[in-house]
Amino acid sequence: MEMHAFGALTPVEVARGRLLRAVRPIDRVERIPVEAAFGRVAARTIRAPIPIPTFARTTWDGYALRSEDTHGATTRAPVDLRVVGEVFAEQSFPRALRRGEAVAIATGGAIPRGADAVVIFEEVEREGSKVLVPRPIPRGDRVSPPGHDFARGTVLARRGEELSAVALGAIAACGVPTVPVYARPIVAIVPNGNELLSPGDRPRKGRIYESNNATLAAIVSAAGATARTEAPVPDQPERIERSLRAALASADLVLATGGSSVGERDHLPRILPKFGPLLFHGIAVRAGKPTLAVRVGPKLVIGMPGHPTSCLVNMYWLVLPVLRKLGRRSGPGWTEGWAVLGSDAVAATPGLATVVPLEFRGDRAYSTYRGSSVITSLRGASAYAMLRPGQRIVRAGARIRVYHLDPPLGPGRIEAARRNR
Amino acid sequence: MEMHAFGALTPVEVARGRLLRAVRPIDRVERIPVEAAFGRVAARTIRAPIPIPTFARTTWDGYALRSEDTHGATTRAPVDLRVVGEVFAEQSFPRALRRGEAVAIATGGAIPRGADAVVIFEEVEREGSKVLVPRPIPRGDRVSPPGHDFARGTVLARRGEELSAVALGAIAACGVPTVPVYARPIVAIVPNGNELLSPGDRPRKGRIYESNNATLAAIVSAAGATARTEAPVPDQPERIERSLRAALASADLVLATGGSSVGERDHLPRILPKFGPLLFHGIAVRAGKPTLAVRVGPKLVIGMPGHPTSCLVNMYWLVLPVLRKLGRRSGPGWTEGWAVLGSDAVAATPGLATVVPLEFRGDRAYSTYRGSSVITSLRGASAYAMLRPGQRIVRAGARIRVYHLDPPLGPGRIEAARRNR
Repeated sequence: MEMHAFGALTPVEVARGRLLRAVRPIDRVERIPVEAAFGRVAARTIRAPIPIPTFARTTWDGYALRSEDTHGATTRAPVDLRVVGEVFAEQSFPRALRRGEAVAIATGGAIPRGADAVVIFEEVEREGSKVLVPRPIPRGDRVSPPGHDFARGTVLARRGEELSAVALGAIAACGVPTVPVYARPIVAIVPNGNELLSPGDRPRKGRIYESNNATLAAIVSAAGATARTEAPVPDQPERIERSLRAALASADLVLATGGSSVGERDHLPRILPKFGPLLFHGIAVRAGKPTLAVRVGPKLVIGMPGHPTSCLVNMYWLVLPVLRKLGRRSGPGWTEGWAVLGSDAVAATPGLATVVPLEFRGDRAYSTYRGSSVITSLRGASAYAMLRPGQRIVRAGARIRVYHLDPPLGPGRIEAARRNR
Repeated sequence: MEMHAFGALTPVEVARGRLLRAVRPIDRVERIPVEAAFGRVAARTIRAPIPIPTFARTTWDGYALRSEDTHGATTRAPVDLRVVGEVFAEQSFPRALRRGEAVAIATGGAIPRGADAVVIFEEVEREGSKVLVPRPIPRGDRVSPPGHDFARGTVLARRGEELSAVALGAIAACGVPTVPVYARPIVAIVPNGNELLSPGDRPRKGRIYESNNATLAAIVSAAGATARTEAPVPDQPERIERSLRAALASADLVLATGGSSVGERDHLPRILPKFGPLLFHGIAVRAGKPTLAVRVGPKLVIGMPGHPTSCLVNMYWLVLPVLRKLGRRSGPGWTEGWAVLGSDAVAATPGLATVVPLEFRGDRAYSTYRGSSVITSLRGASAYAMLRPGQRIVRAGARIRVYHLDPPLGPGRIEAARRNR
């Protein structure tokens, strides 16, 4: 059993920076219905083709009138106007309003030509074909003029923006039925290792079930991308290479899991450099050291550690920002904050940065870490801290920088088995 | 044009409470691949069918040995063990380890019978078929015993829990390929109004484009449900009734938009009570007063105001918690907090509660409200406050209770049109 050593390890920020510089944001565009576009990324700046409202409308039920006709009106001496018609929302009064006239109008109705204000039903008395107005109604009252909501040319969504309910409502209000959005990036996930079974396979001695597909697919979907998982590939260099080439041909980014370290069966460090320039192999961090990446034209292949915890932790601090940039989403996928540590945080290995997954109880943050091979190391974690290389311990009570994850790693609901009595 | 009056208005909390009591959480269950289950709601409590790890494994590359063989070892007088084989991750050593023997073992490999500890390669020297161990290796060192990650019977996900990456990883690690989840609720959205055109229709005088479909579909999808939007239905009671009955037959909840007030063309208050008991008509709130709901067996039909802002604001404070309960998701869809008001918040109408959409600039919250008919009233809003009925004004500088929305209403990116010079 041969072992090699890692060369110089790449600092965390350097590794992430190289990936972020190398990744090319997706260019494929698709046109989808406005009703289905929530959260998708606008591929073009969308400006209002018409003003909204497009014509002067009333926002209340009442009578459209000419403001000047109501000058001097009082409760004692109301002005009476002749009601010459009614306008429902979809209608428009066929002629201009003349002096002394009013038109009953429903919310949303077009203000007749000549009218410039609306008095609500509750304020007036109707007497046959007349309506008594008890006060002067100012010009523009209860009238929503063209462009009151937004003018023609208003930017409703910028290229690169995640489309919100409000933006989509504004786009629909202009009569635009579809929006151009960037395609969801396709991320292939290719596990390798002779010991791996696919969930659902018959159990076999010494074998374990592949589980990184499930966790990585979750984060890929959380980043707005589409995950394409593959069955585990055996430890044969030519089969691994073939699988990765096939994945590269159809995906925008490839995540290979397992075989990323320096052992005899770790084939990725020998295979990946055939594809393109090596960005790094070995990151100065625990968990997550056995990680490597190559650039293949506009694409990336990232070799991730097989240990479930290392793999999932890496996915957050290293890969999620890359996925977001690939999908043209802004921000790294976390928000920074401060927290008070509830228990000591100890460096995993001297000289390496240490990722400390954190669970919040009350206003204190506690490490959930139990080792890189156990997925329950992340149970309940909703944030992480990063100890700097050389930092040996951070004491309980210390105020530390934390990175809140969205979505959180785990909801803290992997519970101990109940004991049978 | 006839107008009726609202009867007694229902307070905000009462209206929401009636809907929450009436809604029946979804019962349909589907089985989906673990890789596709992120964020879905577990329909059954899932316990680990096997312990993980299932067999004792090593978490490092090294030599498996018998701890007792290394008693008394020192750097000067190392114990030498005979290397009798090697075990890669998927293999298992065919016999029990005998006194004085060691087996080379790769990360993840099964600990041979008889062995009870692992020493890592870096700590020892190899001399031909022998390995020199320079210190006593404690029993259990570098060994992950069965159940170390989690024991058989451990609850990996509780019924009703949104499945996290960690939970799915743990489920996959047990070899379970699919999970039972609650179906996404289907929510039909049925607009009505003669004035409404569908986006993409040819513009017509006095008509406006229907836009509530787009905003409500966004929030429905944000709640993890599936939106089914329909083309606007004209103001004919029998056509509206037919559309709603068809929607009820195939959807879990129906949102009717427009025609929910008390005017001549507001048909919902006459149609909906035919379907089942009226829960309320008219809520003591602005925006959002013309809202009604009926219970139809296990389902609900909610009549929402046609004004885009009223409709979308209602969707948040009234309907989102109902959608979440329908889909068996916990929490109302917002998180409560406190904020300092940056500008005065003024009650829209005396005696009604007032929803104040809020935008954060720095650490202060500013109202974005400009009226219920304009969608830009919500531009940038990421939270809202609710003024109590009778509360006339809240002054700038006041500390107020706010409800942070996830996702935010709008990203604040509807920008003024650039003026041509």
